[in-house]
Amino acid sequence: MTSLEEDLEDAVATPWGAGEVHPGVRRARAWLSRAAEPSTVDVWRYVDDLGPVEAVRRLRAGSAPDRIRSLVGARAEQDATLADLQRAQRCDGRLVVPEDDEWPGLALHALTLGVAGEPVVPRDQTDRTRALVPPLALWVRGGGRLDELVDRSVAIVGSRASTAYGEHVAAELGHQLGERGWTVVSGGAFGIDGAAHRGALAADAPTVAVLSCGVDRPYPAAHGALFHRIAESGLLVSEWPPGCAPLRHRFLVRNRLIAALTRGTVVVEAAARSGAQATANRARELGRAVMVVPGPVTSAMSVGCHELLREKEGGARLVTSAAHVIEEVGGIGDLAEPEARPVTPRDGLSDVAVRVLDACPVRTGVPPERLAAVAGCDVLDVLRVLPALEVAGLVEWTGTGWRLTPQRRGSGAAS
Amino acid sequence: MTSLEEDLEDAVATPWGAGEVHPGVRRARAWLSRAAEPSTVDVWRYVDDLGPVEAVRRLRAGSAPDRIRSLVGARAEQDATLADLQRAQRCDGRLVVPEDDEWPGLALHALTLGVAGEPVVPRDQTDRTRALVPPLALWVRGGGRLDELVDRSVAIVGSRASTAYGEHVAAELGHQLGERGWTVVSGGAFGIDGAAHRGALAADAPTVAVLSCGVDRPYPAAHGALFHRIAESGLLVSEWPPGCAPLRHRFLVRNRLIAALTRGTVVVEAAARSGAQATANRARELGRAVMVVPGPVTSAMSVGCHELLREKEGGARLVTSAAHVIEEVGGIGDLAEPEARPVTPRDGLSDVAVRVLDACPVRTGVPPERLAAVAGCDVLDVLRVLPALEVAGLVEWTGTGWRLTPQRRGSGAAS
Repeated sequence: MTSLEEDLEDAVATPWGAGEVHPGVRRARAWLSRAAEPSTVDVWRYVDDLGPVEAVRRLRAGSAPDRIRSLVGARAEQDATLADLQRAQRCDGRLVVPEDDEWPGLALHALTLGVAGEPVVPRDQTDRTRALVPPLALWVRGGGRLDELVDRSVAIVGSRASTAYGEHVAAELGHQLGERGWTVVSGGAFGIDGAAHRGALAADAPTVAVLSCGVDRPYPAAHGALFHRIAESGLLVSEWPPGCAPLRHRFLVRNRLIAALTRGTVVVEAAARSGAQATANRARELGRAVMVVPGPVTSAMSVGCHELLREKEGGARLVTSAAHVIEEVGGIGDLAEPEARPVTPRDGLSDVAVRVLDACPVRTGVPPERLAAVAGCDVLDVLRVLPALEVAGLVEWTGTGWRLTPQRRGSGAAS
Repeated sequence: MTSLEEDLEDAVATPWGAGEVHPGVRRARAWLSRAAEPSTVDVWRYVDDLGPVEAVRRLRAGSAPDRIRSLVGARAEQDATLADLQRAQRCDGRLVVPEDDEWPGLALHALTLGVAGEPVVPRDQTDRTRALVPPLALWVRGGGRLDELVDRSVAIVGSRASTAYGEHVAAELGHQLGERGWTVVSGGAFGIDGAAHRGALAADAPTVAVLSCGVDRPYPAAHGALFHRIAESGLLVSEWPPGCAPLRHRFLVRNRLIAALTRGTVVVEAAARSGAQATANRARELGRAVMVVPGPVTSAMSVGCHELLREKEGGARLVTSAAHVIEEVGGIGDLAEPEARPVTPRDGLSDVAVRVLDACPVRTGVPPERLAAVAGCDVLDVLRVLPALEVAGLVEWTGTGWRLTPQRRGSGAAS
């Protein structure tokens, strides 16, 4: 068993061939994933400047700048990389690094642009829970390949304290998107997240759960069976190494990743102050489509959704079906069919014909002169339109006058 | 009892004093309201050009142009004006004409602008059910004064086949708008209309029902008691003379009047093909605010609402409360309060403080060094933020280490 330092030295001394990643590089990023909280602007920049191997060597040797050392803090002296990599392996997991072909670089490019906009002075930088910083590495578990899964993916997010309505809609969206070849990405939580994952699985489609804890001990525990099913064809993904707990601030940090990995985020149910709204905001900042499913205005779980839809600057789009979602995130050819409207025989009628039709009584037929008086038009006009109305089966001649044909009865007055 | 022609002659011979309307003028407009279907572009223009008295004289004498005569048709020879005015009087009704002070000229000005845009050639003109043409006269019934009632008014419209949800929301909106001094205008129909009227009445506020039948025989008959209550403090309004039936095409013609009389239209529930959507379209064409209450995406009665909200050009605004409605239609000072959000002690915390807080265990206290390792920061940082967390009542010293204060338990993990 080589030490971390030996692996790092080897990575410097004998660079690996193209298309493969030196174990030292992977181990360096494994170390970083535990030493630094994800989405820390200056740590990411330090690694980006020096490369992971050199960055870790300096942090371990104590020769990194004070600012970077303080961000890593007491964790600098620890090394759990071998244990972490082994724990991952034991649960069919692995560490995907930016140097891998599988790294979803295209999707995460928006985060690279985001971090480029962060100021140099630390106190001017965006709060870590809202900053747009790419991940240093991603622990994954399951049978899917990360870059392929997220290529055509949509995030479905929402409240944990969801209603039956929200869960029904999330499951339906997840199912329909899965059926149409889209990967549903969510956070694996109770409520909307779980319903969306289950909907996708019910369509035999792979789905991705982005977690804020280790992929070997997914949270919540009651979703153990769900996570197991997700890992069969899809992936569990996390920035935190195996064993890590889902601390509260990590949920917000995680949300930027859900937004970045997908082409758009659908909020199904969200309370007035919710993580789902935060994810929608990150998606908007990243230039992703923000979609919102409305609900009853009497439901507290839809207040956040309606707030998003009321924002004038926001550009959140109301969606009610998977077709609407695909219209937003898909390319040409994915446009939703317009809502089917019932076509009635009235549709093609002229103004005069409609007036004559409305003037026709239900039971006793009346002469054209009477129709003209009621309809407010000329008798000649009435005689002109009656044949067409008869051919359309709307009116009939009783022998003494004109009346509505029986099946039209009851449709005389409607708004 | 003078004949129509004698009254018209008298109106020409002896013009009335300022502020009063000659009976001949009112009788001429009463005649027009029965002779011509409302919203007929060329009849309105003919009356606008010649004045009501001269227009009626020529129509009665057969000297009007063929085009205008054909629009009046067989009705030109009839005269029910005295009977109509008497029938109105018997039910506490009257005819309000543009020459009256009570005429809501300001609100209806948008229709005058609308008709000005209509082409001269009849076949190029907008269909009568969609054309924006001012009314020639308005039959009203009730204790209210028309211009005052509609000055600060909002239309609430929606499906007749409404759900309990829609009726609840319409009644609530009607009530709250009524309480705040706004007149609720609707169509008096079953479903959303009725709920909105009742909500306003429950707040002891006057409300206006714009009908597509005579004000003496309001439709539907089952709303007789409701119409009676509306007439006590508000008004029933119709372009059609007493006794007229609510023919189907009249509903669409009537809808433009609901849109025009009000500062904005709120659609509460609407099916995919509905009169409520038509009213919203008229409101938009008239430059009025278009507001839509969303609902469950699983409800057919909300499909039309969501379609309106999805239109990119439409500018329909999602509203969930009377405050939102007043924000759209009211002046300065009527802005809605932002949604109240719960403020928690976490809100003001720095990134490091949040991480330290999340690192604190629930039961057994741990030393600052351990907190630093879990939170991923320096021990000095931990020692710097702990006092503030303790003062805020978030953490406590057990004698051997730091832990969450008991009332914070259970809030450690949340999205």
